[in-house]
Amino acid sequence: MTITIIGTGLIGGSMALALKEKGFADKVIGVDANPLHCKQALALGIVDEIQELAEAVTISDLVILATPINAAEVLLPVILGMVNKQVVMDVGSTKKIICESAAENKNRGRFVATHPMWGTEYSGPEAAVKAAFEDKAVVICGKEASDKDAVELVEKVYGLLGMHLVYMHSADHDVRVAYVSHISHITSFALANTVLEKEREEDTIFELASGGFESTVRLAKSNPAMWVPIFMQNRENVLDVLNEHIAQLRKFKSCLEKENYEYLEELIEKANGIRRILK
Amino acid sequence: MTITIIGTGLIGGSMALALKEKGFADKVIGVDANPLHCKQALALGIVDEIQELAEAVTISDLVILATPINAAEVLLPVILGMVNKQVVMDVGSTKKIICESAAENKNRGRFVATHPMWGTEYSGPEAAVKAAFEDKAVVICGKEASDKDAVELVEKVYGLLGMHLVYMHSADHDVRVAYVSHISHITSFALANTVLEKEREEDTIFELASGGFESTVRLAKSNPAMWVPIFMQNRENVLDVLNEHIAQLRKFKSCLEKENYEYLEELIEKANGIRRILK
Repeated sequence: MTITIIGTGLIGGSMALALKEKGFADKVIGVDANPLHCKQALALGIVDEIQELAEAVTISDLVILATPINAAEVLLPVILGMVNKQVVMDVGSTKKIICESAAENKNRGRFVATHPMWGTEYSGPEAAVKAAFEDKAVVICGKEASDKDAVELVEKVYGLLGMHLVYMHSADHDVRVAYVSHISHITSFALANTVLEKEREEDTIFELASGGFESTVRLAKSNPAMWVPIFMQNRENVLDVLNEHIAQLRKFKSCLEKENYEYLEELIEKANGIRRILK
Repeated sequence: MTITIIGTGLIGGSMALALKEKGFADKVIGVDANPLHCKQALALGIVDEIQELAEAVTISDLVILATPINAAEVLLPVILGMVNKQVVMDVGSTKKIICESAAENKNRGRFVATHPMWGTEYSGPEAAVKAAFEDKAVVICGKEASDKDAVELVEKVYGLLGMHLVYMHSADHDVRVAYVSHISHITSFALANTVLEKEREEDTIFELASGGFESTVRLAKSNPAMWVPIFMQNRENVLDVLNEHIAQLRKFKSCLEKENYEYLEELIEKANGIRRILK
């Protein structure tokens, strides 16, 4: 099978590596607007060749759209205009807008909207990891709007990657990821800025940073080119969660201000409930 | 050398294991108010025997005070009242109050105030890890108030554990850990509560949680018995950082509300500055 990866970075690159290793992709064609990424993807064996979009889509069986989501929204209707039997899947972090952008397309059936729940704070072909997706969840949205054979091919791809399938409506997906992914990035960015501000006064503030700090702040290394479009597209859900999160922080603040340590203990015990989820 | 560990949990237990392995401790005596922890510490080989406080201190060369900091503050003057040649060190997450609690003690010189910058979200003897402290920083505060031989022994202990020594005033320590440790715990507790609240409406919200979420929330598993006293003792510094952190979050909120994506990008790029610190 010939596969085109549009956007040869962290997600597209990791998929290409895995699908080549599984013997599922005979040939992987890379399409990328960034010449450096094209060069790196070739050098790292992520893609076998680089092509222009139209040519790549024409000769492929499967097209994986793995650009930042603002570009994906623009490219999807263009790609669907080029396909006949090909299957097109995206891998973006929001699902409502991409589904809307394809909704009225005559080739809507060839498109499958997906979101594999894996990522890191790094980006570009050099961040790609072969066994990235194993044992993680992948969401497929609006399955009923996709052709049966297209869904089956995409399910096969994710099966090969070792992912378990979750089906949901695109709007439900976008609410959930605001809670379990997007807000984590905002808290990390804000925490990084809090401490970096302090560093201007106390230039050795990081001398004592250890694992706990790193854990809560590592996502702050994430690329704005990926994340600004996510926050734009999922703005209302993210604002809801951010408001709730600030309200939760204010409870801690109020406990400290009023020296109400009984309630502080209660808040922490409640938070300990996360032990049910994170083993 | 005979060493007494008061509080046989995560930190005390990890130290005991390492110091036994290095051959530095011939005998480790455990003192713990929790009978279950005493039993576990014996079973896990963390301590060789369990004793009452007075007896243990009397026959030891080194006493490591590793209880939650509210207990340490009360126990330190009691222990200093029992020592003559013994060295007493604490390992608590705040340093100002413990130093004050010893300041006027006739045996102040036998005490060395320390804070090894390592921990996890787990607690108790079963959480102890042998190679816990390697390559991490340890802070020694108010060194000038400790006897020279006491400081040398403590420096030797931390050298054996593979830690690098940082010296600072207890008040400076407490400001810094508010930024690089205590606030991370508050953001994690608050984030856990934000998502756990949502779970009441949407009981499958965690189905999509992956590495990024886990990273920012894992500290929310931390024990309130340890953390409430830390927030009490470092209340003013933690409140300062918490106020700054809420102000930083409000900048993100304002960007989303006003759809000011240029400034949002700027905030994220600024946060990316953390790449300098976290490799």
